[in-house]
Amino acid sequence: MTTATDIENGTEVLAHLKGDLDAVDARILETVDIGIPKVSGLVQSVVKTSGKRLRPSLLLLVARSFEPDGRALISAAAGVELLHTASLVHDDDIDHAALRRGRPTLSTQVNSVTAILIGDFLFAQSAILAAATDSTRVVSVFASTLGNLCQGQIREMLESHAIDQSLEQYETRIYGKTASLFAGAAEMGAIIGGATEHQITEIRAFGRDLGMAFQIVDDILDVAGESGTIGKPAGNDLRQGTVTLPVMHYVAGLAPDSSERARLEGVVSGDLTEDTVIAGVIADIRASGALESAMDVARDYITCAIERLDVIPDPTYRARLAQIARLVVERNA
Amino acid sequence: MTTATDIENGTEVLAHLKGDLDAVDARILETVDIGIPKVSGLVQSVVKTSGKRLRPSLLLLVARSFEPDGRALISAAAGVELLHTASLVHDDDIDHAALRRGRPTLSTQVNSVTAILIGDFLFAQSAILAAATDSTRVVSVFASTLGNLCQGQIREMLESHAIDQSLEQYETRIYGKTASLFAGAAEMGAIIGGATEHQITEIRAFGRDLGMAFQIVDDILDVAGESGTIGKPAGNDLRQGTVTLPVMHYVAGLAPDSSERARLEGVVSGDLTEDTVIAGVIADIRASGALESAMDVARDYITCAIERLDVIPDPTYRARLAQIARLVVERNA
Repeated sequence: MTTATDIENGTEVLAHLKGDLDAVDARILETVDIGIPKVSGLVQSVVKTSGKRLRPSLLLLVARSFEPDGRALISAAAGVELLHTASLVHDDDIDHAALRRGRPTLSTQVNSVTAILIGDFLFAQSAILAAATDSTRVVSVFASTLGNLCQGQIREMLESHAIDQSLEQYETRIYGKTASLFAGAAEMGAIIGGATEHQITEIRAFGRDLGMAFQIVDDILDVAGESGTIGKPAGNDLRQGTVTLPVMHYVAGLAPDSSERARLEGVVSGDLTEDTVIAGVIADIRASGALESAMDVARDYITCAIERLDVIPDPTYRARLAQIARLVVERNA
Repeated sequence: MTTATDIENGTEVLAHLKGDLDAVDARILETVDIGIPKVSGLVQSVVKTSGKRLRPSLLLLVARSFEPDGRALISAAAGVELLHTASLVHDDDIDHAALRRGRPTLSTQVNSVTAILIGDFLFAQSAILAAATDSTRVVSVFASTLGNLCQGQIREMLESHAIDQSLEQYETRIYGKTASLFAGAAEMGAIIGGATEHQITEIRAFGRDLGMAFQIVDDILDVAGESGTIGKPAGNDLRQGTVTLPVMHYVAGLAPDSSERARLEGVVSGDLTEDTVIAGVIADIRASGALESAMDVARDYITCAIERLDVIPDPTYRARLAQIARLVVERNA
């Protein structure tokens, strides 16, 4: 029985996709069988630390709203999820993150070298899945997306530790590291579904805007959330020196010579690392209204995204995709 | 004028490919334009630290011996060289190598995180080049090759620091980290050239055997060579705890309780790191005849490889490919 709460939290949409998502999981497990006894268990545990599987769900829903080839569909969706997992492995290694999705990261279980190599291996396997779609267009989208992910990460690293950043820098960065994969997943779904060029363009834009909103919400949750809910320590971005939209909105409201600005500069530059100082900055950002104004930006992205869905012919699928989009801004983890 | 020496050292073969190789270089430089000012120069210097370009030359020669599509050919050859470069960037970061091809590695110029990300970016760009061939079969070979490279590196890491290794372990490892890319390059060339299935199978085997020989010679040069010639310090593998074929042949001739064996175990395990001790081990390996017996194995691979070339219809190309194969065992760097 589908309840109002189910629909609200997206359980119904995901239940509808259960068959496809199970096939995606099976395909991933089959693909990552590395054949090296000491490593197989580690690799399996990395891919099983399953997240919300938003990216493959997006691809599947888009494709299912047209008439997809089933085999290519599952390969592409598995490829997208595995590409995401591979990028998380390298990110965690780079950030020295201890927790991801509430569980210890690979970087805490093996040395950095092994984490790099396992990440590379997962990139390779995701490329194999993309190739298995037998569509050079899907492979092209996949490869460009991988390039964008890397550029986004490089930008994040280069642009960290500085509180004065332009909105354009922030947008370019989160497009690269997050929205490009949502855009690519949506585009691949449309290609596999056999959509028209116009539909493909609009659906890609839908994915991109949804991805932008997703990252902004992630950045908000990093300040707003409790460790237990978001699966990693609150204020993680600040500790890494990464300046996000809510922080930018907060900075905009500070006087140039204020002690709050000096304290924030100290935290972002890495000079101030005490937990109490960081907790103080987080409390101030929360009190400043910056989380709400950043959330308004995320909601606007979702509104734009949903408008693009006019190109989806089937009203049931249109509604489901809109629901996924709304979930992105309504989630609390 | 082509001289006997030119032919002997392969200059003639490479001169014949000059037009194609220049196009490959141009395609690589165009593809790696990352659009981030601080990083562009670094990335360009990595791809310009050009090696022998054996892998793209192999792909080009194989394809040119049939009737290839020119555009796909240059993309694939550029993709193969860039895949190789990307894997070197991660390897150097993993090995903390200071020199590669006689020049400082990226790892000595930037921090480890940047090197990981630039490696990832180059992997992505190589995948974009593979996708640009518009052949799903080429992309499949490319993706599997990337997977093999990663598995080879993982095996090398897991199997290091132990002097008792089976020949099968060694073969599996060097296939993964080296021969698979030669096999893949040859196979892609044959696919793009429009060869028959039988020809593709034989040409892939040619590339694989050539790659096995190449790695064995590399392993021999690591013991035999002078730093100035091979572009990295002699005995590098031993310092890393990597046991190679010449070392295995040397071990086979040592008594279980000999002091030489104990000393070698100390070096391979990482307990003994003094330059004089390592120089002593290297001198002993050189004096044992292990380099010559390992070279015999490499030569046998080349003989097998050249036999596969019967499937190449044009005798001029057959001769050029055989010449490249012989170069592999005759090089001293």
